[in-house]
Amino acid sequence: MSAIDELVGELARLPGIGRKTALRLAFHLLKAPEEEALRLARGIVDVRQKVRPCSTCGNLAEQDTCAICQSTRRDASTVCVVEEASDIMAIERTGEYRGLYHVLGGRLSPLDGIGPAELNVDPLLRRVGGGVVQEVVLATNPSVEGEATALYLGRLISPLGVRVTRLARGLPVGGDLEYADGVTIAEALAGRREL
Amino acid sequence: MSAIDELVGELARLPGIGRKTALRLAFHLLKAPEEEALRLARGIVDVRQKVRPCSTCGNLAEQDTCAICQSTRRDASTVCVVEEASDIMAIERTGEYRGLYHVLGGRLSPLDGIGPAELNVDPLLRRVGGGVVQEVVLATNPSVEGEATALYLGRLISPLGVRVTRLARGLPVGGDLEYADGVTIAEALAGRREL
Repeated sequence: MSAIDELVGELARLPGIGRKTALRLAFHLLKAPEEEALRLARGIVDVRQKVRPCSTCGNLAEQDTCAICQSTRRDASTVCVVEEASDIMAIERTGEYRGLYHVLGGRLSPLDGIGPAELNVDPLLRRVGGGVVQEVVLATNPSVEGEATALYLGRLISPLGVRVTRLARGLPVGGDLEYADGVTIAEALAGRREL
Repeated sequence: MSAIDELVGELARLPGIGRKTALRLAFHLLKAPEEEALRLARGIVDVRQKVRPCSTCGNLAEQDTCAICQSTRRDASTVCVVEEASDIMAIERTGEYRGLYHVLGGRLSPLDGIGPAELNVDPLLRRVGGGVVQEVVLATNPSVEGEATALYLGRLISPLGVRVTRLARGLPVGGDLEYADGVTIAEALAGRREL
């Protein structure tokens, strides 16, 4: 039964997939139409063969340059800095941002040995110093490390003479004041705006 | 970005995996070491190529006959009838059963067009009528359809002169009487035993 055990083991390595779920998925892949199971296997191989980081911004791309960097309808004067390529998808889903992106590939985390050299920082500074960029939106995560990364980048970029902004913090839409944590409420108060 | 979209689509077809989880898994497969991602893809292909139903009992097997049917240490006079091969794993984990198995491949469900002909019933009757089997343990699920399937099989097997038993029903170990449903408590009462 080793082929099943091996598949279960590999499935259980996926994030958020425990042993029991892995077993359920393996049985599904055994019972599903063969073509469906093989399409998934091929999908994994394809994605590893075809997808590479965009040479400009680090976004996922199937060519040298990603679809966003290639687009002529994007505003090249604004660059939004994110930790991971998956953050780009989240921002794109809003349909509210027309600029370009830059993927850091993580956030500063000295305890994990991740300093500026481990991140995609130098290419960002070169892009920003190129004369086209007028605003850098720092969209690292609202976590302690994301915040520290934003502060660090802000200090590097401000001297280059471009506008540096940070995503607003406050109460999430649809959230409940009663259940919001104190830090978020404090940020929402500090950032309150005229009606 | 179509390779990613395709992979996300395939992952989202898995049971219990929604669009968001599929996206997270796809990003993991992109970021993980290439060897790890390819091992998963190979695992899926392998399992489809190597695993077949055991020709005797219908359990998953990598040869013509499964490991349990091949074993000389199992008691061939007892056959436990289950709905799916995954149920065998659940029973084997207990380490309390030494007999053989028979996989029906489902349960009677007239509304879904699943009658006796769609299940692995005739081979079961041939096995039981062969003279070696002395007890058939009906271990279909404790659901309405599983129960109906067990009753149906019981009526077919009893005339063959073998003992027919059913897994006991009652309160699950570690459960709480207060939260048990009425049907389960009624079954536990009806099946009460001397201390």
